[in-house]
Amino acid sequence: MTALEQYKIQREELIKLDRSLRRDHQVTSLSAAEAEADQIIRKIRAAEATSIWSLDYPSIPHPFPGMEFLTGREIIVKTKLFEILSRMPKGALLHAHLDGMVNVSILLKLALKYPSIHVRAPKSLTTQNIDAVAPEFLPLPKNEYPKSALGLTETSYQPNSWVPIQVAREQFHPDLGGPQGFDRWVTRALTINPSEAYGTHNTSVKIWKKFGSTFLVGGNLTRYAPILEDYIKEFFHSSIEDGISYVEPRVNFMSKTVIMADGTRVHHRELMVIYDRVIREVKEEMKRRGREGEFIGARIIYSTVRFCDNKELEWYLQDCIALKKEFPHLIAGFDLVGHEDELYPLIYYAETLLRFPAMQKEAGVEIPFIFHAGETLGDGTVADMNLYDAILMGTKRIGHGFSLVKHPELLKICKERDIAVEVCPISNEILRLTSSMLTHPLPILLNHGIHVALCSDDPSVFGNMGLTFDYFQVLVASEQTGLIQLGEMAKDSIKYSTLEAHLREEALGLWQKQWHKFLEYVIAVGKEALPSN
Amino acid sequence: MTALEQYKIQREELIKLDRSLRRDHQVTSLSAAEAEADQIIRKIRAAEATSIWSLDYPSIPHPFPGMEFLTGREIIVKTKLFEILSRMPKGALLHAHLDGMVNVSILLKLALKYPSIHVRAPKSLTTQNIDAVAPEFLPLPKNEYPKSALGLTETSYQPNSWVPIQVAREQFHPDLGGPQGFDRWVTRALTINPSEAYGTHNTSVKIWKKFGSTFLVGGNLTRYAPILEDYIKEFFHSSIEDGISYVEPRVNFMSKTVIMADGTRVHHRELMVIYDRVIREVKEEMKRRGREGEFIGARIIYSTVRFCDNKELEWYLQDCIALKKEFPHLIAGFDLVGHEDELYPLIYYAETLLRFPAMQKEAGVEIPFIFHAGETLGDGTVADMNLYDAILMGTKRIGHGFSLVKHPELLKICKERDIAVEVCPISNEILRLTSSMLTHPLPILLNHGIHVALCSDDPSVFGNMGLTFDYFQVLVASEQTGLIQLGEMAKDSIKYSTLEAHLREEALGLWQKQWHKFLEYVIAVGKEALPSN
Repeated sequence: MTALEQYKIQREELIKLDRSLRRDHQVTSLSAAEAEADQIIRKIRAAEATSIWSLDYPSIPHPFPGMEFLTGREIIVKTKLFEILSRMPKGALLHAHLDGMVNVSILLKLALKYPSIHVRAPKSLTTQNIDAVAPEFLPLPKNEYPKSALGLTETSYQPNSWVPIQVAREQFHPDLGGPQGFDRWVTRALTINPSEAYGTHNTSVKIWKKFGSTFLVGGNLTRYAPILEDYIKEFFHSSIEDGISYVEPRVNFMSKTVIMADGTRVHHRELMVIYDRVIREVKEEMKRRGREGEFIGARIIYSTVRFCDNKELEWYLQDCIALKKEFPHLIAGFDLVGHEDELYPLIYYAETLLRFPAMQKEAGVEIPFIFHAGETLGDGTVADMNLYDAILMGTKRIGHGFSLVKHPELLKICKERDIAVEVCPISNEILRLTSSMLTHPLPILLNHGIHVALCSDDPSVFGNMGLTFDYFQVLVASEQTGLIQLGEMAKDSIKYSTLEAHLREEALGLWQKQWHKFLEYVIAVGKEALPSN
Repeated sequence: MTALEQYKIQREELIKLDRSLRRDHQVTSLSAAEAEADQIIRKIRAAEATSIWSLDYPSIPHPFPGMEFLTGREIIVKTKLFEILSRMPKGALLHAHLDGMVNVSILLKLALKYPSIHVRAPKSLTTQNIDAVAPEFLPLPKNEYPKSALGLTETSYQPNSWVPIQVAREQFHPDLGGPQGFDRWVTRALTINPSEAYGTHNTSVKIWKKFGSTFLVGGNLTRYAPILEDYIKEFFHSSIEDGISYVEPRVNFMSKTVIMADGTRVHHRELMVIYDRVIREVKEEMKRRGREGEFIGARIIYSTVRFCDNKELEWYLQDCIALKKEFPHLIAGFDLVGHEDELYPLIYYAETLLRFPAMQKEAGVEIPFIFHAGETLGDGTVADMNLYDAILMGTKRIGHGFSLVKHPELLKICKERDIAVEVCPISNEILRLTSSMLTHPLPILLNHGIHVALCSDDPSVFGNMGLTFDYFQVLVASEQTGLIQLGEMAKDSIKYSTLEAHLREEALGLWQKQWHKFLEYVIAVGKEALPSN
């Protein structure tokens, strides 16, 4: 054997060892179909990296695979790879916020159905101020409907006076685009656009301000019971169409979360009732369509925002237990949400949170913590330190865990205790934790053997509806990751859900069937797209 | 003990364990002065994070600590922290390229001293084309001096005809800024400016094209023997003034590297002679000034570019051995340099490189590999894979190792075999591997217990002269890293240099003395800047 041959054997061994913690390298028996489909995906990725991504686009100065999502989106949707991934079965969606799940244009359409929905602005809108002024929505009780109302763009519009949404839309001044201008104005307030993410708000701190404002604008629409029902339905259906079979969104609960049809505010128990009903309806509908296996169901991670104090948190914990008792099949866990860099850290709540296990025991329920932690660029900041507390308090999974890679001992514990990480690639990029997918820490997590579920976080704000976009960004930003790794992440999303063992098994079985069909489809695409294959 | 107290003890233990691999956490006995100085630095950092970094700057839309260097530089130099760090003893500079070490304005001044230096352009320069056209320099033999020469901005300038540099400068058209306009034109070609790094060339691939071009423009100046002598001297002196006591730059050797005073090209042996002489002169000068301990000396890492073929590499290896025999005290190691994403990977050279140890043995010399590897955003690309080869071939240190954090087994090996990483924070950011210091993988390396030496790479192109800027960026981007960690990195730069054991000890001893003086200075600054301290 020559020195070079010997060297190459040694090299192969080292690479194998270095990769041995990866999920895709632990798959011992790859089926012929999997191997073939993986190769096809790699070939198409390589071909499109030069064909599609090296073209000149008038409005995109620096196209590259894994680029800034809001700018690259229009290229992504043209790729074969995107088309293929949209057909992939993706398992469960484990990190998402209910109020950020439905396409803004659909939400707007829903809102326009209800005469009770009113809108106002702090001043009369003009071409000069429109980009800086956001709408405020509210479903009003009938007795509070305004007697008469001037459009928001009238010079004599009374600041902060309510206008029926239909009137506001129809009377939107032609100089501001008329009704379409109204839609654009609302859409702009409910989403993050590229010039904000990559221009005016191009730091984590700044973009979070815009991010937070989208929920303030949309909150009174999504919390309105008549809309909520259709909203949840749309969320489930669009998820199913994207190959997601189970969802476990976080819902931010406040003491009076839901606005009823008549404008009164009620306890969020009502949301649970609606959620439960919609699950049943969608399941029945899927059954009618002969697509039963495609929707396992949905739960909710009870969440409240990290600005409450410990006394309020105590109330939320009790409330969460009460809901769990009434809806044991719906409450999946408990979390604290909001901008970690700016709000209270977990340690602030430690005393209260440490009592939660005993409270559960007393009530005879089990509600795992599923904490957001380490969604930050900080190194040793309180947000980064949240990871210690999340893990010490026994979190079942870690939401984001962006800074987890900085913690060797925590990585070890995550492996030992089988704590999965909910990674939200596009969210992290738009919220400026990473400038593109190429600098995202996901490969570090995967290579260190951490179980990962890819998640969309708030697609209505980011435009990454479903999970296809997130899978796409991950796939094109790495030479290492291929179809097998994507499949492992989809499986892990089911394995690390809060579904009971038998439901998990069922879901995995169904996923496996869909996966085989998907592989056949990829191979068929490969035959067509890569005739030399 | 309450549950909370118990929890907090457990938490402290976990944090301690998680941090236990860090160099600064391994320091068992912190002197009172170190502890005090560290606290002062942390307080000033915190104060300036809100005072200086939260101000509005007309030309800087998003100031924050650790921000894009080329934009933030003007803020950085105003901080107290920068002033303090400029006085810190920094040990050795282990990763730098000789042709990128001297402030461009000084290089230009040196060039203007020699009538032999000529300049040309591919077309007559106008306000329209000047930004897109780069100068070409060449020292001409006397018999090739042009008889007469029109300035570069004359409409009748003959494309690509040589003009004496002084003439070109003096006759630079007033519309293009006159002589200062000439200086700006040259400076622009020799440096990367913010609108290139963060605008027109805002990807790794694009900025490398500009980066590479700066060396093409400057090469014939820095390689000109009369300039080279002053250039090296300036490099040493400016390093010393920044608290660097030893340098180990890479030099790109080509078969005829040096241009002599008369314009003839000779073997780079001449560079070694000059380098050796300048070391002696600077040492003598430092001795005369009573500052002997501040300059231990300098060596060279013999480098050639990754575009040569294996036959050429064989020649370079032989040549390197010959130089090592003649200048055993000067040749520190061997490296292959250039853009890893685009040029040949180490595996391409494996057969030849694997013969190097036997070649050395036969010649009775020892020349460690000190490879660039993993200077890439790639995950599983050939550039990323260079890390396997660098380590398997026994590299003494890793140049950049930006993608090392993706490799758990290689991180382990680096710890076991004591392989340090030469981290170049500002270079990585300007060459767009990271958008700011906040997303740089350095904290991951430090927390995993990897030994790191901070380095400047090519400060003449980036504007990060000395090491103060790089230390600054690292310090302000982390809450974890403080003065103790900076000191450990400075010590590691000496420990992982190629200096022989007794010289290393001597250098460390001298560093320790400077460090004590520096701590006293920091404490004095603290008393003044933080009177409540």
